[in-house]
Amino acid sequence: MRVSLSLILITILALVISFAKAYDPSPLQDFCVATDDIKIGGAVFVNGKFCKDPKQAKAEDFFFSGLNKAGNTNNDVKSNVTTVNVDQIPGLNTMGISLVRIDYAPYGQNPPHTHPRATEILVLIEGTLYVGFVSSNQDNNRLFAKVLHPGDVFVFPIGQIHFQVNIGKTPAVAFAGLSSQNAGVITIANTVFGSNPPINPEVLAQAFQLDVNVVKDLEAKFKN
Amino acid sequence: MRVSLSLILITILALVISFAKAYDPSPLQDFCVATDDIKIGGAVFVNGKFCKDPKQAKAEDFFFSGLNKAGNTNNDVKSNVTTVNVDQIPGLNTMGISLVRIDYAPYGQNPPHTHPRATEILVLIEGTLYVGFVSSNQDNNRLFAKVLHPGDVFVFPIGQIHFQVNIGKTPAVAFAGLSSQNAGVITIANTVFGSNPPINPEVLAQAFQLDVNVVKDLEAKFKN
Amino acid sequence: MRVSLSLILITILALVISFAKAYDPSPLQDFCVATDDIKIGGAVFVNGKFCKDPKQAKAEDFFFSGLNKAGNTNNDVKSNVTTVNVDQIPGLNTMGISLVRIDYAPYGQNPPHTHPRATEILVLIEGTLYVGFVSSNQDNNRLFAKVLHPGDVFVFPIGQIHFQVNIGKTPAVAFAGLSSQNAGVITIANTVFGSNPPINPEVLAQAFQLDVNVVKDLEAKFKN
Amino acid sequence: MRVSLSLILITILALVISFAKAYDPSPLQDFCVATDDIKIGGAVFVNGKFCKDPKQAKAEDFFFSGLNKAGNTNNDVKSNVTTVNVDQIPGLNTMGISLVRIDYAPYGQNPPHTHPRATEILVLIEGTLYVGFVSSNQDNNRLFAKVLHPGDVFVFPIGQIHFQVNIGKTPAVAFAGLSSQNAGVITIANTVFGSNPPINPEVLAQAFQLDVNVVKDLEAKFKN
Amino acid sequence: MRVSLSLILITILALVISFAKAYDPSPLQDFCVATDDIKIGGAVFVNGKFCKDPKQAKAEDFFFSGLNKAGNTNNDVKSNVTTVNVDQIPGLNTMGISLVRIDYAPYGQNPPHTHPRATEILVLIEGTLYVGFVSSNQDNNRLFAKVLHPGDVFVFPIGQIHFQVNIGKTPAVAFAGLSSQNAGVITIANTVFGSNPPINPEVLAQAFQLDVNVVKDLEAKFKN
Amino acid sequence: MRVSLSLILITILALVISFAKAYDPSPLQDFCVATDDIKIGGAVFVNGKFCKDPKQAKAEDFFFSGLNKAGNTNNDVKSNVTTVNVDQIPGLNTMGISLVRIDYAPYGQNPPHTHPRATEILVLIEGTLYVGFVSSNQDNNRLFAKVLHPGDVFVFPIGQIHFQVNIGKTPAVAFAGLSSQNAGVITIANTVFGSNPPINPEVLAQAFQLDVNVVKDLEAKFKN
Repeated sequence: MRVSLSLILITILALVISFAKAYDPSPLQDFCVATDDIKIGGAVFVNGKFCKDPKQAKAEDFFFSGLNKAGNTNNDVKSNVTTVNVDQIPGLNTMGISLVRIDYAPYGQNPPHTHPRATEILVLIEGTLYVGFVSSNQDNNRLFAKVLHPGDVFVFPIGQIHFQVNIGKTPAVAFAGLSSQNAGVITIANTVFGSNPPINPEVLAQAFQLDVNVVKDLEAKFKN
Repeated sequence: MRVSLSLILITILALVISFAKAYDPSPLQDFCVATDDIKIGGAVFVNGKFCKDPKQAKAEDFFFSGLNKAGNTNNDVKSNVTTVNVDQIPGLNTMGISLVRIDYAPYGQNPPHTHPRATEILVLIEGTLYVGFVSSNQDNNRLFAKVLHPGDVFVFPIGQIHFQVNIGKTPAVAFAGLSSQNAGVITIANTVFGSNPPINPEVLAQAFQLDVNVVKDLEAKFKN
Repeated sequence: MRVSLSLILITILALVISFAKAYDPSPLQDFCVATDDIKIGGAVFVNGKFCKDPKQAKAEDFFFSGLNKAGNTNNDVKSNVTTVNVDQIPGLNTMGISLVRIDYAPYGQNPPHTHPRATEILVLIEGTLYVGFVSSNQDNNRLFAKVLHPGDVFVFPIGQIHFQVNIGKTPAVAFAGLSSQNAGVITIANTVFGSNPPINPEVLAQAFQLDVNVVKDLEAKFKN
Repeated sequence: MRVSLSLILITILALVISFAKAYDPSPLQDFCVATDDIKIGGAVFVNGKFCKDPKQAKAEDFFFSGLNKAGNTNNDVKSNVTTVNVDQIPGLNTMGISLVRIDYAPYGQNPPHTHPRATEILVLIEGTLYVGFVSSNQDNNRLFAKVLHPGDVFVFPIGQIHFQVNIGKTPAVAFAGLSSQNAGVITIANTVFGSNPPINPEVLAQAFQLDVNVVKDLEAKFKN
Repeated sequence: MRVSLSLILITILALVISFAKAYDPSPLQDFCVATDDIKIGGAVFVNGKFCKDPKQAKAEDFFFSGLNKAGNTNNDVKSNVTTVNVDQIPGLNTMGISLVRIDYAPYGQNPPHTHPRATEILVLIEGTLYVGFVSSNQDNNRLFAKVLHPGDVFVFPIGQIHFQVNIGKTPAVAFAGLSSQNAGVITIANTVFGSNPPINPEVLAQAFQLDVNVVKDLEAKFKN
Repeated sequence: MRVSLSLILITILALVISFAKAYDPSPLQDFCVATDDIKIGGAVFVNGKFCKDPKQAKAEDFFFSGLNKAGNTNNDVKSNVTTVNVDQIPGLNTMGISLVRIDYAPYGQNPPHTHPRATEILVLIEGTLYVGFVSSNQDNNRLFAKVLHPGDVFVFPIGQIHFQVNIGKTPAVAFAGLSSQNAGVITIANTVFGSNPPINPEVLAQAFQLDVNVVKDLEAKFKN
């Protein structure tokens, strides 16, 4: 009897504790290697990730392998982003930085999107890109755009809508640093027309000055 | 001769100094009342606004009048945002907060947009609103939406795409606080389809899975 | 025997874990909805609030109802503050903003107080208020004061002592945004003369240049 | 003619530029030594202090002399605070820390006050102090108090009202670190009853439950 | 049977929870007193320290005793640092400040080191010190040095290499404030030549332009 | 007469204003493109860089060219760091991120150093590197080291001493992101043994347990 009571209590506790994820914005110790080891069934989370015991930190916690491989660009936008953030390198926890490799098939694009928590600095390794960002309403939504060649670098300021397009006939490859261990991505088309559940088509028709049937088509296409 | 030399030097200096705008993210003194008084012709700016001499600060620097008046909703989206930020109240400089009044004509909307530098907390005073925000790709672009009645409050997290629609037959009025003295607004439709100069229509056609002629139409409509 | 040992261990764990409250200063994810669900008996807390599982976040977590109702001003200072912070809207966790409704009976006041963690921006909806704040010793404790009418806005900088007084013959109503999800309130009279336990009356008599018996009277009045 | 025009322009510029004071919250370079050298007549200020040319920085910019001398405690509260912040050591600019020496005559006190921008950590060198702080309304205004002897350390959290009283028959001396280069001081009695101009006595009488004539007496005593 | 299962589960939970240490960078409540009471066997950590239940906070949590006693300087560098940070005063959690007492025997030194998370402000109480810091490569590694006498104050900017040497014939005593509750110390000689395991001597020989055997000797001396 | 007076005043003003450099830690506007255009002779600086007029910002302000070229490794350590920070891309001002390309000749190294203001995330493009960092005294100066092959990524936490060595027979190339627009570099050997002026050799001899003549030799070698 008492045993099963204790099991119930343990289960509740486990539900409470497990899957704990949490980290904090700036270092208060040498490092705070993220951990997901708190998995017994439950639900304690923080803004970021919890740390593992600092004494258990090891070199592998600061390491990731595989950015030499091209991502699979066989998709609608013909591009692929390989992300190396705190989910891939737990030692990035609290460190305020992460990295991506972006592959673009010919005529592929990384479509208009924002990072709500990071500025991006991109260096082109191979190929030719047309890149740009658009400033906010207060700055009259100006387009800042450039054609990039290998060795060129471009900056996309935090929260601004930006894109990259492969305008060459060969694949393009870029690396980019982001000023957060978990920058987030908001792809405009998918977020506006492919939300779950969809936004009322009448609302989007008015906002985008589109026929409501065009919006319904878009919502069908972007449904995920 | 020397006189005109001095005038030239003064002009250069003026070009250098004027229109100076600058403030900093968190208070290091009681207040840092913004100033635009540095206007002789030139160009010194900071991230935010410069302060006026603290000894010259007065009650009026922390004051604004007129939020009792409805904004003009005679426009495409039938809504109006009256902003009270550091440009209207210089005493908000470095303080990390601002305020807006939003008026919605019947069936008007505050169309999908983001604030790159602020979370918004809205309280509805009159009318009935359908409001919502969409989370990022990592959270599967989930729509968080609610119908609001007078006295209801809703929160739009920093950087997320959100909107409000008046679904009633009468005007609606809301006040909202924003967690920045200069939150910024990025209206999605205007930024994507109305940038200056326009983004290449082919790029947007691929991104939004729209016919290129539809994109061209949209770019014509949103041209500003 | 062993069963009761396990129960003891569970109890200790529960004491350790429960009532956990924690959040962090700036977002590292789309949102971090606060949770108090960690209640089995114990004591794990953080600076702010823990998050609930992001996948379990829903629109209600960003919603609050009832700011259309006047607060009860039947008290010594004839005013009432209805607070909408992270305790009322868990989705405000890590977002750096909150909201209050303040009601003032005729001749009521929101007495001199500070917010240790927030600047306040107030908009008057109804009535007539005399409002002000006093700057720090370094600025010679200058009083910045104004009479407000409906639609007027005033700013009270972080940490400065401020107050509002209804100087009209009718009730007054204001809304105010605060630049923290948990701004805190330090009412001067209650904190200085009504602390638990009371500060030694001799100390306050010297500090306020009051007769020690006047201080004892005040401490009796403000005892809570 | 043109000459005097240029002089007028110079005067305007000077008014605009001089007495410039400005610094920022966290380092973006090795150091940012504060400068007040921008004094020709005018008014450019920032949140904090401007820097001097980094190349002109020298050891003296990080140095201050004289904390071995007792301050003059011949005043109403029989205590004296010698402040070493960014005004005394320009190299503290952007560094987020400062230092004070506090002298207390027998039965002297550092009366109830807050630092709006800093936590304080105090170490007692000589004498016996009774020290304390009071938490906010949300924590029921609890008094946290202790008697300190030489070598004892006590912490006063940011924004909380706190005090120190010499309860010994000999002078006391303490040093304290503050978590800001410009912590600010708000002495409660002087700020509430000695503001410039005074707060309406009726307002304070209601707030402090004092007879209006007692408030008028206090305002006369604390007038500065 | 079931009993031992529950014990196993408890053990796993304990491993998960115990030794929890966590705090956050800036206050979101009056205080967040650090706790290490989460010790049953496990491993939940945060960036900083967890809080104890705010209601259980008491004056002792903000108190430390013993800085009147000289530290033991009987060691290689003839100096001793007594640290009073969040490990000694749990109330320092999230407060961004700490304190040290440094004792120097005659001809003792606090050898070249950095604090990765804090600026230091030092006041000399007794003796004569030669102190200095060296700026970064971008500033040409300039040495900023001074001889200090009692009552003199010197600032060591965050992250810069600095040192203090007792150049008098008597012991020296200093107190210093640090702009973090957990500043960290990286002693250059021990970190470079005494790491665990040692850095390859060939690497250090090239870096320091030393004979590889000299490096091996150093690594033997600094092995800990 | 008056003319030369005005010229003198202009010169003073110019001295005051010129070479102005200043930026702030986090964005308060879409971007704050750094400017050095304030060069007439003088000395106004801020923590970071001033902005140019936002209306004058253009795509080139966010662009840099040339990272496809190998740096010159013909030096003592046989490596070269090409830095792309706010000095190369003014649009990085306030954005909290920068980029470097590092070239290593065979057996070359990027010798032990720290970044006082940034964490580094490095991706190896070509060659084979042995990389590592050493934690602080509190963590017992543990060495975290790895051999990297193309596509491998490693993280060096802010303020920790770290290094990379080319252990292959061919040149190596890496790119790295840094979490500051002006990370700073402190090369240990040059800073300790090559400061300007040199640190007293007796001090370093005691700190590093080296013969004073060895220190003098090192100081001669690292003199710059």
